[in-house]
Formats: sequence, C-alpha cells, structure tokens
Amino acid sequence: MSDPTTGNIRVTVWNEGRHEKTDPQVAAVYPGGIHGALANHLRAQPGFAVRTATLDEPQHGLTDDVLNNTDVLTWWGHLAHGDVSDAVVDKVQLRVLNGMGLIVLHSGHHSKIFRRLMGTSCSLQWREIGEKERLWVTAPGHPIVEGLGEYFEIPHAEMYGEFFDIPQPDVQVFISWYQGGNVFRSGCCFHRGRGNIFYFEPGHETLPIFYQPEVLRVIVNAVRWAAPVAVANFRNVQDTPHTARPLEPVAIEG
Amino acid sequence: MSDPTTGNIRVTVWNEGRHEKTDPQVAAVYPGGIHGALANHLRAQPGFAVRTATLDEPQHGLTDDVLNNTDVLTWWGHLAHGDVSDAVVDKVQLRVLNGMGLIVLHSGHHSKIFRRLMGTSCSLQWREIGEKERLWVTAPGHPIVEGLGEYFEIPHAEMYGEFFDIPQPDVQVFISWYQGGNVFRSGCCFHRGRGNIFYFEPGHETLPIFYQPEVLRVIVNAVRWAAPVAVANFRNVQDTPHTARPLEPVAIEG
Amino acid sequence: MSDPTTGNIRVTVWNEGRHEKTDPQVAAVYPGGIHGALANHLRAQPGFAVRTATLDEPQHGLTDDVLNNTDVLTWWGHLAHGDVSDAVVDKVQLRVLNGMGLIVLHSGHHSKIFRRLMGTSCSLQWREIGEKERLWVTAPGHPIVEGLGEYFEIPHAEMYGEFFDIPQPDVQVFISWYQGGNVFRSGCCFHRGRGNIFYFEPGHETLPIFYQPEVLRVIVNAVRWAAPVAVANFRNVQDTPHTARPLEPVAIEG
Amino acid sequence: MSDPTTGNIRVTVWNEGRHEKTDPQVAAVYPGGIHGALANHLRAQPGFAVRTATLDEPQHGLTDDVLNNTDVLTWWGHLAHGDVSDAVVDKVQLRVLNGMGLIVLHSGHHSKIFRRLMGTSCSLQWREIGEKERLWVTAPGHPIVEGLGEYFEIPHAEMYGEFFDIPQPDVQVFISWYQGGNVFRSGCCFHRGRGNIFYFEPGHETLPIFYQPEVLRVIVNAVRWAAPVAVANFRNVQDTPHTARPLEPVAIEG
Repeated sequence: MSDPTTGNIRVTVWNEGRHEKTDPQVAAVYPGGIHGALANHLRAQPGFAVRTATLDEPQHGLTDDVLNNTDVLTWWGHLAHGDVSDAVVDKVQLRVLNGMGLIVLHSGHHSKIFRRLMGTSCSLQWREIGEKERLWVTAPGHPIVEGLGEYFEIPHAEMYGEFFDIPQPDVQVFISWYQGGNVFRSGCCFHRGRGNIFYFEPGHETLPIFYQPEVLRVIVNAVRWAAPVAVANFRNVQDTPHTARPLEPVAIEG
Repeated sequence: MSDPTTGNIRVTVWNEGRHEKTDPQVAAVYPGGIHGALANHLRAQPGFAVRTATLDEPQHGLTDDVLNNTDVLTWWGHLAHGDVSDAVVDKVQLRVLNGMGLIVLHSGHHSKIFRRLMGTSCSLQWREIGEKERLWVTAPGHPIVEGLGEYFEIPHAEMYGEFFDIPQPDVQVFISWYQGGNVFRSGCCFHRGRGNIFYFEPGHETLPIFYQPEVLRVIVNAVRWAAPVAVANFRNVQDTPHTARPLEPVAIEG
Repeated sequence: MSDPTTGNIRVTVWNEGRHEKTDPQVAAVYPGGIHGALANHLRAQPGFAVRTATLDEPQHGLTDDVLNNTDVLTWWGHLAHGDVSDAVVDKVQLRVLNGMGLIVLHSGHHSKIFRRLMGTSCSLQWREIGEKERLWVTAPGHPIVEGLGEYFEIPHAEMYGEFFDIPQPDVQVFISWYQGGNVFRSGCCFHRGRGNIFYFEPGHETLPIFYQPEVLRVIVNAVRWAAPVAVANFRNVQDTPHTARPLEPVAIEG
Repeated sequence: MSDPTTGNIRVTVWNEGRHEKTDPQVAAVYPGGIHGALANHLRAQPGFAVRTATLDEPQHGLTDDVLNNTDVLTWWGHLAHGDVSDAVVDKVQLRVLNGMGLIVLHSGHHSKIFRRLMGTSCSLQWREIGEKERLWVTAPGHPIVEGLGEYFEIPHAEMYGEFFDIPQPDVQVFISWYQGGNVFRSGCCFHRGRGNIFYFEPGHETLPIFYQPEVLRVIVNAVRWAAPVAVANFRNVQDTPHTARPLEPVAIEG
C-alpha cells in the first residue's frame, strides 16, 4: 500500500524529541533532532514521502489523519515512554494490526507500543561504555540485508544484551557480538495482524550511529519491507464477524 | 517447577463463573461450574494438586499467594472479560513471563490476559449452530497430542473461524475443519518469557464438550507440557540489569 | 536480483511434461502443457522474462547456464519424480540455497527437490473425487495474498490432507477446507539458505485450476516474493571458511 | 515413548570413533572414545538405558533392531562423514521422522544425517585457536536449560561462527559469543515429522568439553526433551494414504 495517487511509501518518523532540547551533547550530534537526521536520509530515497511527528505535539503528532495516511512508522523513544498517551498507543496498535509497518529503533524496545505488540516485557541487559559491536547477518536472503555483506561493525555502541524478553522473531535477521562479552538479537522481524514490525537495535542519542551508512541502509530496506500490501475486501482484524449462515449446507444430526 | 515438597504440578482452574449463576441451561450442563468439571477431571490425575478460582472472589481468587503457588493456570472467560481488573491481568502476565504455564480455553481468546500476551486483537469469526468440528493433528510428535490419533471430532460445536488474529504460533498443534465451511488454528503453543501458553479452541458453556475424553486428554497433556522448568539464578525477565562492568576486558579506541 | 541489464525477474517454468503426451484428457485441458499455460500467464505480467524447461530435454532443460540465469523456478512434477537426475537436484538445491526462488506446485510436494529441501517425507493424504476446496488466508499482510479477499474457492479439486509431513512453515499463508472433511496447509513459505520457497497446493492435470484467476494471482505474487535480493560480498552458503585469524585480538589463557 | 517394560529412555550414543584410534591426543583426552565418555555420564542418570554404536561396526552399529529400540540417538562425527552409508542414513532419517529423538553434537553439523534432515548445507565458519566461548540462554523456559543460569562459559573452544546455513530453528535455545569476534546459534531445536532434533555446538576431540558439567547437563536435558511421545494409531509419516471415501458426504455439483 502506498499513496494511491503517487505510489509513494508514506513514512512518518516519530521521535520523543526530549533529549535534543535538554542535553547539549544530543543537540550537538543531532542538531535537527534524531527525527530530523532520519527524515533527511529517507527523503533522499526515491519513492518515499516523509513527515515527522514528536511527543510534544498535540496527540504526539499522530492524529487520525496522520496515521491513516502513514504506510510505515519509525519509532524512537527513550526517556519519556510513560508520557505517550494510552489512547495514542491504542490507535497505533490498531493501525499496525491493520497493515501499517512499524520500525522500532534502539531504546524503543521499552516503548509502550512495542511492549503492547510483543506482549512481553521487552527487557534486556545494557551497558554504556562505548564498546565495539559487530552485527552478523543470520538471514542473508532477507530484503532487509540487501546490499550488506556478512557483517558490519559499529565502532562505539551502547551494549544491549540477552536475555531479551521478546517472542521468538518470525525472522532473525541480525545477531550482535559485543566486545564486553554479550550477544543480542539485534534485528528481528515480526508479523502481527496484517502489519510488519522490525526491531533494530543500533542507535544512540549521543553517538553518531544514525549517520552510519550500513545503519541507514538497513532502515531504508526495512521501510520498503514493512510497507503494507493491499488485500482486497479484508475486514479490520479486530472485528468479530458473527456469520450466522454457514458457507456450506449443514444438516445438524444427533 | 512444581510443589517443592511433593513434586506435584499445582494447577489453578480459573472460571469467570457468571453463566452458571444466571443461565439454567449452563447450570444444567455444568452444575458445579465449568471450573468444577475441569477441576474434577484434573484432580483424578496423578501428580496434580488442583484448586479453583473465580471472577467474583476477592482479587478474582488470584491473590499473590495463589499465583506464586500456581504452576499452571487454566482460563475460561466469556461474558465478562471487561470485569477482570487490570491489576490482576498485570500480575498474571508477569507470572507467565516468569514461568507459570497458561492454558486458554475457547472464548478465553478474547480475555484481557490472552490479548495482552499475544499483542494482537485475537479476534475471529464465529457461528453457533451446533455443527460438527474435526480437529486434525498437525504436530504428531508434540506432547500435547500424546494418546490421540490423526484427528478427533466434536459432534456439536460452536464454530470459530479464520482469520484468527494471533501471532503465528511457535507450534501449530491442531487445525480444525467445520461442517459449515471454515477452518481454524484450534491448538496453538506460544512461548513468552519463561512461560508456556496453549490456546485450545474446543469448549462451550451449554455443550458438554468439557466431558469429552479427547478434549480432557489434551487439557491434561497441556498442563504437563506447560509446567515450568527450574532455571537456576535466572533474573525476573522484566528486570533491566545495568551491568556497568563488561564480562571481558574492553579497551576503547578511536 | 534480476536480469542485471533489464531488471526483469527471470522465471523458468519447469514441467515434467509426461501427462500431456500420453493422456488425451490432460492434453485437452492443457494443450500447450502445464508449463505452457503458466508461462503464457507469467509472460503477460510486466517485469517478467519467462522461459520453460521440461524433463525430457537434455539435463531436464536445467543446464548451468539456465540455472545461473534463473531468479525464480516453478516446479510441476507428478508421475516421474524418480526420473529427475540426482545431479540436477543437487544443482537446483545449491542454486536455491544461494538465492534462487522456488515455487512448488501441487503434486510437486513429492518431487526430489522439495523433499531434499524440506528434509522430511512431504507425504500427505489424498482423494480424487472433484470435491470443493476453500483456501482461507491466514497471513493477510503477506505479499503473496495481495489482491485476494478472506478466502477463495476451487469448485473441483483433488483433496490433499493433513498430516502433511513438512517442517512448520516460516509463514503459513493459506489453510484449506475440503468438502469431504479434511484440512491442509495449502500455502507455505520457507526460507532456506538465501532462497525463498513457496509450496502452493492448488493445481491438477485434468482440472482447469491453472486458469483460475485467484490461483494465477497467487503464483504471480509468489514469483515476486521469491525473487532473490542482492547481498554484497556474501560467500556461497555451502562454503566452510576457515578463518584462522580472529576478528578481535585474542590472548589465550589457562 | 520408552522401553515398554521398564519405562526407561533407551539412548544410543553413536560415534565415528576414528580419531580415538589414530590420534594419541584424542585418545589421551577420551581414552574410552567420545562415545564412552558420553555413555558413562548418561548411564549415571536415572531412567536411561544406554548403549553405544560406532562407524566401524557392521551397519555402523545401527541395525534395524538397534534403531527400533532406540528412543534417542546422539551423533558425533567429524573426519569420516562420507563413510556413513546412505542406506543407514535413510533408515535413521525415517526413524527420526517417526519419532526417534536426535542430538547432533559439534562437528556433526556436517554429518549426512543432519544435512539430510535440515535440507541445507549446514556450513559455517570455523577457527581453532582455543578461544573462550560464552553460551547465552535465549529460551529460559525451555526444558533443555533446566538447572542453568543466564549463560555458561567454555574456557577453550573451537569457534563455529555465522552464517550457519540451517533453517531457522523452531526454538533458539543458545547463542554463543566468541572471544575472536563471532557469534553462533549454538543450541537449536527442530521438529521434523514426529521427531525432535537438537543441535548443540559445544564439543571437541582434543578439548575436555564433554566432561564439563554444564555441557553434560544440557545433553541430559536434551535427551529427556527429545524422547518421543506415544501417539495412538498414527500412521508412518512417509505413507501416502489414498482415502477414496470422504469423511463427510459429498455431492459433486457443476
């Protein structure tokens, strides 16, 4: 699915956007906000129509109109997961179940929307010493790794380690090695309802990870993978049709 | 895991228990309540210690003490999913993520706890004309089908049909055929956190399905399968350990 | 991946092609062979470059040159699975593991190549009385169901029933209902190595199933889904690189 | 399933057994052979009846009588995979598909039987410098990790690294970290037919890994997990029953 007129994939880049206002270090690395850096890169791709939305806008920038015209939503949150309103989470969940793609980045693992869609705590171990991370490809035929090689490295990363409390992914795309001795399922595909979800671990508010070409390549690939397909005449998945009349003749006996 | 003294699997049979009070038809089929019928059968098994709990008890009968001493919880709800308190759902979810088994029966598909753990709407199609159902085994090596053959039939069933909005099961154990033309993923295993979840479609409040030997056999098998294993020194899965010190020496460069 | 010059997906439609020569009934329904009917339809799609190959050609029409220039292979076999040479099966398997898509149709479930790639017997129950089949969509967000509704029907089909001895599919796309009382996992996605495999149950040599629009729609969608992605610098998956030098400095102790 | 008289799980420990005869280093570490070391430990467990079999016995020690009376087979091979006869591989495959458990150890990843059952090349990267390995638990509720903590370490191991060309496991139980910078899916459960398969990476012919308590604990747990269940009246999965008569009345129209 995409813009019915242009065929573009309509991407909304969502950002909590709090760090950028309060922490000069974050503002120095991401002067236009993390959403700005991501949106700039996505706008440079053919076939994408990109907008941004942030926590402190009315309805967090995710009005019905925005959600209904979004094919893929990317999500960055970190400090203020609790400030996202449950009403917005309800609406985003329904949109995902009915086909909108969702890309959850780094600390978004603990966002309300990701925990809601996973049904688990999504907790993990973490450490912030700027160690090296190496992401190994474990699904080399998957569209999300198009253009990559066997692995790529992030020179300075925050460590996110197992046990990561998620359902086993429908496809395990990346597994990370960390210098300090941990591993992590760092690229995970999930299908929920009619929607595609990708959790991608790389990213940080004061490390320039969202400028690294391999990371950006994966995010672009993921947006294309997550974009919904058009299924004709498919009801909303949350409906519970009472179909009193069977599709076949039924003679009840006994 | 099990009672540390006796080695018994401690089962709590939970029932909404409203029908039985208000609908004489239900009371006629299940005079001791659906929980009574199930508990009676489970009590007759070796190695099970069985109690019951119902919606209208304080805390729905699911106090901390009960939950902490429950290895496997079975869940029947139908009319009053909304009356289950969110605080109890929160606690049951955490207990499942930390190892308690959960068996969700029939209309429990729309319970708060099942929807919470799945992350999806868990909606489906339905029809109530008493048609025939045939459950085909699609995982013939799974402990839940021990003692069964290739399929079994329920002579008069409520139809639950696809699309069933659940994550793809970790193991698909049964798929049902319905006389009226529908199919359904009627036996589904899920692993979430350290807990095992089984959704089992058969059951009805006015049909004697919970007296049928094959159905009871599956529920008994499922309780044994869902009982938790003892993992030494494993943190609560919802914790987020900050492990400042790496497991390996790390010299940060660059 | 696709033709590097044109960007077309290069499809090879493989057919055993024996029925068509010996059975006038088959020739009447598929005068150009089953491969002819499928190739005609695929050729009418934008972005496809289509050729055919059959069992009785040298190397079954699957020379190195053909295989190396095939992005997606579709497979129909029925009477003569045993006549396919093991050497060709070896080569097709390696091509799939290194990225070539494979669409296995109906009685191809018992082909050497499908059994090889699954590792199981791929056996099933069957019945040939021309009963009705209804395919329910169980993955409504999957590209293979694009354009379909909740289900579609085949008025007269051969029955293929559970238990179907396959690994649990990576995605379960369709489940079939049969008038005679059986169910079947009739649309199954598998990822193996870098290759995508789709098993699709509909089809028959004397029933006009390969002219039915929904069936053709699924096959076209499946070809697009199965086409390989380009992964840079990825070794052949069957290689076993001995990497004597670690990626990180290792001081062995103890 | 188990010995019908005693209820014991009947384990056959299979070993190629060539190293032990030709390489004094191997004989020094495993004087009774790798099979001897494993069998000794398994014999010390309650409820196990253990025998051994080796490549150089007639039929590799895997006669029909042995296979028909084996509930779980463990497999170590390394130098001489090609010397295992295809006829024996055929028989072992059928026994697994009909319920016999299979535990494949370390270099058994390239055995004929494992490659046969997976359908892929099962290739991987490797390095032999005696570096440290740390196995992280990614399925903390699984019976195979009973008694373990969050991870365990092998002080000196051969490195096996991604990409590992296997189907995505039905359950991912362990992921390994290596000092030299690699990761590996080191504990993998697969269901095939009615059989349970566990691939477990630790092990080496000159390192004392098969004496390490955590490794032995996992193998014992895996044997219990892999033991077959008794399914009543279930046909051999490789049969293809032609059931001419439908289970339901069918009136063909049109």
